[in-house]
Amino acid sequence: MARFRVTGTGVMARMLRQQCVRYQTTRVRSICTSPTCHQASSTAPPFQDEPLGPQMISGLTLPGPKVKQGLEKLDRVYDTCSSTLLVDYDKSYGNYLVDADGNRYLDMFAQIASIPLGYNYPRLVQAAQSGEMVRAIVSRPALGSFPPTDYADLLASGILKAAPMGLDRVFTATAGSDANETAYKAACIWKGTQERGGRDFSHEELQSVMENQAPGAKNYSILSFIKGFHGRLFGSLSTTRSKPIHKLDIPAFDWPVAPFPELKYPLHEHETENRTEEERCLRETEAAIDAAKSPVAAIVVEPVQSEGGDNHATPFFFQGLRALAKRKNVLMIVDEVQTGVGATGKMWAHQHWDLETPPDMVTFSKKAQAAGFYYGNEALRPDKAYRQFNTWMGDPVRALLFRAIYQDIERDGLIDNTAKVGEYIFEHLESLVARFPQLMQNLRGKGCGTFIAWDSPRRDDILALAKTKGVFMGGCGAAAIRLRPMLIFQQHHADIFLSVLEDVLKELS
Amino acid sequence: MARFRVTGTGVMARMLRQQCVRYQTTRVRSICTSPTCHQASSTAPPFQDEPLGPQMISGLTLPGPKVKQGLEKLDRVYDTCSSTLLVDYDKSYGNYLVDADGNRYLDMFAQIASIPLGYNYPRLVQAAQSGEMVRAIVSRPALGSFPPTDYADLLASGILKAAPMGLDRVFTATAGSDANETAYKAACIWKGTQERGGRDFSHEELQSVMENQAPGAKNYSILSFIKGFHGRLFGSLSTTRSKPIHKLDIPAFDWPVAPFPELKYPLHEHETENRTEEERCLRETEAAIDAAKSPVAAIVVEPVQSEGGDNHATPFFFQGLRALAKRKNVLMIVDEVQTGVGATGKMWAHQHWDLETPPDMVTFSKKAQAAGFYYGNEALRPDKAYRQFNTWMGDPVRALLFRAIYQDIERDGLIDNTAKVGEYIFEHLESLVARFPQLMQNLRGKGCGTFIAWDSPRRDDILALAKTKGVFMGGCGAAAIRLRPMLIFQQHHADIFLSVLEDVLKELS
Repeated sequence: MARFRVTGTGVMARMLRQQCVRYQTTRVRSICTSPTCHQASSTAPPFQDEPLGPQMISGLTLPGPKVKQGLEKLDRVYDTCSSTLLVDYDKSYGNYLVDADGNRYLDMFAQIASIPLGYNYPRLVQAAQSGEMVRAIVSRPALGSFPPTDYADLLASGILKAAPMGLDRVFTATAGSDANETAYKAACIWKGTQERGGRDFSHEELQSVMENQAPGAKNYSILSFIKGFHGRLFGSLSTTRSKPIHKLDIPAFDWPVAPFPELKYPLHEHETENRTEEERCLRETEAAIDAAKSPVAAIVVEPVQSEGGDNHATPFFFQGLRALAKRKNVLMIVDEVQTGVGATGKMWAHQHWDLETPPDMVTFSKKAQAAGFYYGNEALRPDKAYRQFNTWMGDPVRALLFRAIYQDIERDGLIDNTAKVGEYIFEHLESLVARFPQLMQNLRGKGCGTFIAWDSPRRDDILALAKTKGVFMGGCGAAAIRLRPMLIFQQHHADIFLSVLEDVLKELS
Repeated sequence: MARFRVTGTGVMARMLRQQCVRYQTTRVRSICTSPTCHQASSTAPPFQDEPLGPQMISGLTLPGPKVKQGLEKLDRVYDTCSSTLLVDYDKSYGNYLVDADGNRYLDMFAQIASIPLGYNYPRLVQAAQSGEMVRAIVSRPALGSFPPTDYADLLASGILKAAPMGLDRVFTATAGSDANETAYKAACIWKGTQERGGRDFSHEELQSVMENQAPGAKNYSILSFIKGFHGRLFGSLSTTRSKPIHKLDIPAFDWPVAPFPELKYPLHEHETENRTEEERCLRETEAAIDAAKSPVAAIVVEPVQSEGGDNHATPFFFQGLRALAKRKNVLMIVDEVQTGVGATGKMWAHQHWDLETPPDMVTFSKKAQAAGFYYGNEALRPDKAYRQFNTWMGDPVRALLFRAIYQDIERDGLIDNTAKVGEYIFEHLESLVARFPQLMQNLRGKGCGTFIAWDSPRRDDILALAKTKGVFMGGCGAAAIRLRPMLIFQQHHADIFLSVLEDVLKELS
């Protein structure tokens, strides 16, 4: 496997410092020394002028002095206890993140999987400079009360053009947590409306709800899965089951939980036992619905449990969930906040499942930059005004951005690109697993784009060492490394990553 | 009182149609017919080139055909059941909102009190076109993990420059609901940490929290007030007590509630009984804290209950709350989402109270465009990473915008302006109250900037009729009209408003 080495102490790595290398479509690399070349015409394919690779300041221990001092300064007024880098976003470009000290990393975490198309992506810069963007920033509408004349067209040409099949309506929100919580609210309102069977609210309901009591405030619940992550506000956190640190000291609703399949990898070698495990989880989900102290309005599930450790399940499990939800008359909410917008090699990860009927709601955020939930059934829209409402109800700035992102995904075939690059990465990781079985286990995400992960007992060491070599990755769960590159990540980036990973594994062996 | 009439059927009103009138500093009006005059140099004082007044298409019933058709089109994919206008934000300018049919309203509701400086405000347009804004849009950081090198400076020169005295730290969020909920979480984490007294989490806490059970998930509560409004996600909605329609069918935490003073107006005529009422509410708040089934971590209160009906209380009440919270060792969260950023004639409404020690947390959103909570006590910052965390942790786009807003507020003395214009409006409303006592009652907000309201048994008729005459106002509570003009609202705008209101009151008498 030929790889182009760009980090470490090699002569070539040193040679490349301060240079900006132009990739041509033929993959012949020519060097461009213009300091402004990343302002290249936005009609050209993006990032032809990306740096050649990572570039670490020699002799520097991470974090470097400027990152350290900068975080100390920020910490006086803003919580930085979870901060790992201080980033120069002006200098960051394409797949490369540059820190305050000037270290340039190949970014395979992408702001917790939320950057779709690379830093300072030229075509998004154009969108950000447009008159409609400026207007959206300066005159932010209260979308529920005073929508803009062009909002229907903006949705049709952007958020809804990207919508999953069968879900042709949208409720817009501002981030993943409130996208999920408004979906939960829609489910509760739907269930309450159904149970009232067309009658109006009773006097007792109207009175009791102001005291947060039944029958006005319903004792409904949202069922989630062990190790699921759905956000950190009070309702979403009640469905988040990934790690104690997210939840400690915070009041939570007494909502039911069911087991998510714990599959064995590689999947094709464990088909029988994995099927048994998925059948068990489906049975237990059904039992949890039946036994719930509070009637279940909806189940919420991630296509791949991301924060919880990149836990996959097969289409069989999700098809079973879809059927179960229907049979039990509960809604199925698919949380695609992290899986959505292309990273799994499909626009939406649930497209891998071949469902007969779509999920009832699909939530999105992160790489969409916009947030909200898609739905198809008119009954999920409240029957009265101001039931599902807030001041901003989303953000036209991000609706415009998602439109631009989606247009580029389509134009440049970035989902196919991600599927192919993912295959390439997976295949090469398999050979590393064979060579370093103590350091890489449970490789997963085959056929799932670049949504790839594996476990390692030395996870944190691998992450730290790779970072010193200019490759920035993220962890998840107890021992997993998850890959979350952007949709513009290509085979030559994969080569850099694989080369660095191989070095790291060798050093740690 | 001489007023310049611009609506109705007068000759002048018709004359002014399609014209754009330039206000000069001498207040002599000259007519500018250039279609691009609202792109005037942004170094000039803003909105010299504002239209002269409202302008309604003659012979049109509201909503006009384009608003109607546009909302019908949008309704196919997006919930419009709470929509009252379809707005042309390109044509809206300054204090004037233009609907899809071309009707131009003097906007005294300002996107539910969330527009600080007028539509298409020239200096904000400059900020929106800046390189740092473009970067913030295109390369959105995960602020908690990877803050930008200039974030400390951006906070210091913007959000924190505007901070209330004594609260020199900030947690940034995306909107009012999550600003409040993260403040609630900070309160719960603070209380849990205090109760553990320095010991680490127990095994039992770590286990139980994953099941949403005590002792890991705490049975803490946030106390709020009858008719308070704090948002619509699950935690914030549990503290919202304004109207049943906001809460029906949604599960809620069984959190305590206390009465908010129901004062009699005008305040100076009812000092004794109002004092008695405020003392009663303080006693009942204390009793509610003592009797709460779930220990109270914080009380949350609005300086003026806005959505709940523009209910005021005096500094005595808030001083009493501050003292009570201290005595009971619970935190005091002041929700300034609607009252903050100048509209009450102070930057923050709680500055009217002369507190000896500041609130523990002050939440903000709306006119700040940015959102979050201010705090001063380091103990409100979690002791461990990832306890208070999410992907975006705010939005640099809005941090930049708030900085520009604050700079303009300071430069142009817009808070003083608002205080003065508010006095002017209040004084003239008093005379209308005297003339139309059946239609205007409980006028309130004296000395509170333009944060003015009154009750009317014909509230909805007044709002509808004023709208046909080109003045757009909002309601709140059961029977209140609340004024929420922008900070650039001036005496000549007040004259238009007062003239229209007078006409409306005459017609309804």
